[in-house]
Amino acid sequence: YYVVVNTVFVKLLNKIFFFFLTDTPKVAFSFGSGVSGNLGPFDVETIVVFRKEFINIGNAYSPITGVFTAPLRGVYFFRVNVFGFKSTSWIAGDLFKNQENIFNLSDYPEEGRNEYASNGVSLLLEKGDLVYVKLIVGRQIFDNIDNHCTFNGFLLFPM
Amino acid sequence: YYVVVNTVFVKLLNKIFFFFLTDTPKVAFSFGSGVSGNLGPFDVETIVVFRKEFINIGNAYSPITGVFTAPLRGVYFFRVNVFGFKSTSWIAGDLFKNQENIFNLSDYPEEGRNEYASNGVSLLLEKGDLVYVKLIVGRQIFDNIDNHCTFNGFLLFPM
Amino acid sequence: YYVVVNTVFVKLLNKIFFFFLTDTPKVAFSFGSGVSGNLGPFDVETIVVFRKEFINIGNAYSPITGVFTAPLRGVYFFRVNVFGFKSTSWIAGDLFKNQENIFNLSDYPEEGRNEYASNGVSLLLEKGDLVYVKLIVGRQIFDNIDNHCTFNGFLLFPM
Repeated sequence: YYVVVNTVFVKLLNKIFFFFLTDTPKVAFSFGSGVSGNLGPFDVETIVVFRKEFINIGNAYSPITGVFTAPLRGVYFFRVNVFGFKSTSWIAGDLFKNQENIFNLSDYPEEGRNEYASNGVSLLLEKGDLVYVKLIVGRQIFDNIDNHCTFNGFLLFPM
Repeated sequence: YYVVVNTVFVKLLNKIFFFFLTDTPKVAFSFGSGVSGNLGPFDVETIVVFRKEFINIGNAYSPITGVFTAPLRGVYFFRVNVFGFKSTSWIAGDLFKNQENIFNLSDYPEEGRNEYASNGVSLLLEKGDLVYVKLIVGRQIFDNIDNHCTFNGFLLFPM
Repeated sequence: YYVVVNTVFVKLLNKIFFFFLTDTPKVAFSFGSGVSGNLGPFDVETIVVFRKEFINIGNAYSPITGVFTAPLRGVYFFRVNVFGFKSTSWIAGDLFKNQENIFNLSDYPEEGRNEYASNGVSLLLEKGDLVYVKLIVGRQIFDNIDNHCTFNGFLLFPM
């Protein structure tokens, strides 16, 4: 007997099977700096390596290099927190996507005072794009077991 | 021959086909203010038009009006960052959902100092609901290429 | 006639049906403190009960106890904002996962000044894990109708 093959229906079935055969990607990292005391100031721009892991689902962030490498094309949300305490220098935290500077945090904690600076952004990344936080020349950040300085990112949706 | 039509099964198939026929909505915007120097103070309440686009997936935020219009019913997360630098006025950033005031940022950067103020919130929006940030009378915010002032939003899930 | 039953295909169908039979879990809460004036300082560590509801999809956060109870295993993002105004004490906001201290906010608003402190983190939670914010001994936070102090959380994905 005959079956009318509807190509729209076949395409739909393909889409359904593809969706379930390829596991939905799960990407989320959340790290504290792991620093005790001040980090910096340095003579050269330095990537801040956040070493204290809360989670690293998908292992796309490296606590060795401090760099997040997008495992797939998609929109990701990032959040950076930096902190100063009794600093002699201004604090900083500059977010980069590859060579592109996305935002810069800049603040000064006066004598004996604390100061937080934070910002967030969503970015469309191609597979392989790099995202990281730099400490520019002459700046410093402070951290301890309170985990004031953090770097978070997660996939919102693939594109 | 006979086929027993199970209505539960048919409903399930409908649900599956509907899910895949209607593309999962993707909504995420992320903008800096694009301002160089101070914005404000103004004599009237003014919507802050964040003009520097990082992403605008779904084009639900307008960089012309500064207003986000919910493209579908769902829960959305929003985040606002404002910043002051050597201001003569207090800084502000008031988040509104339609006519409802959700939260207000308020801070004062003393002489020669920086100051960040930020907050985040998740809201259930009906299709067509408006979300935006206002600068109230007499306040000002500062921004430059560092992109200190940002407005972010993304869909968490449809409802 | 004969049908070749492909177990891979059957497993795939099971996965598809299971996905659509079990509704995708929706978990997101967003609360302001609801406090008018100062909260604290207290003689004992106290959970901050954020009482002003923006949303509480899934009812996993209790505005009676201030505690979020994970309704399923998964990765969740949390964000805490605290604020001080003309305080006599330092401000604080300590995030806990069960008995584990995740991060601590700490800042001092000098005479007549405002001060915000905020941080965010993603955590992998087992079903039943508890997440909450504590005000440590001797600290205080300030809030009013501006909703400066907020506690937000949402499910990123089940695990």
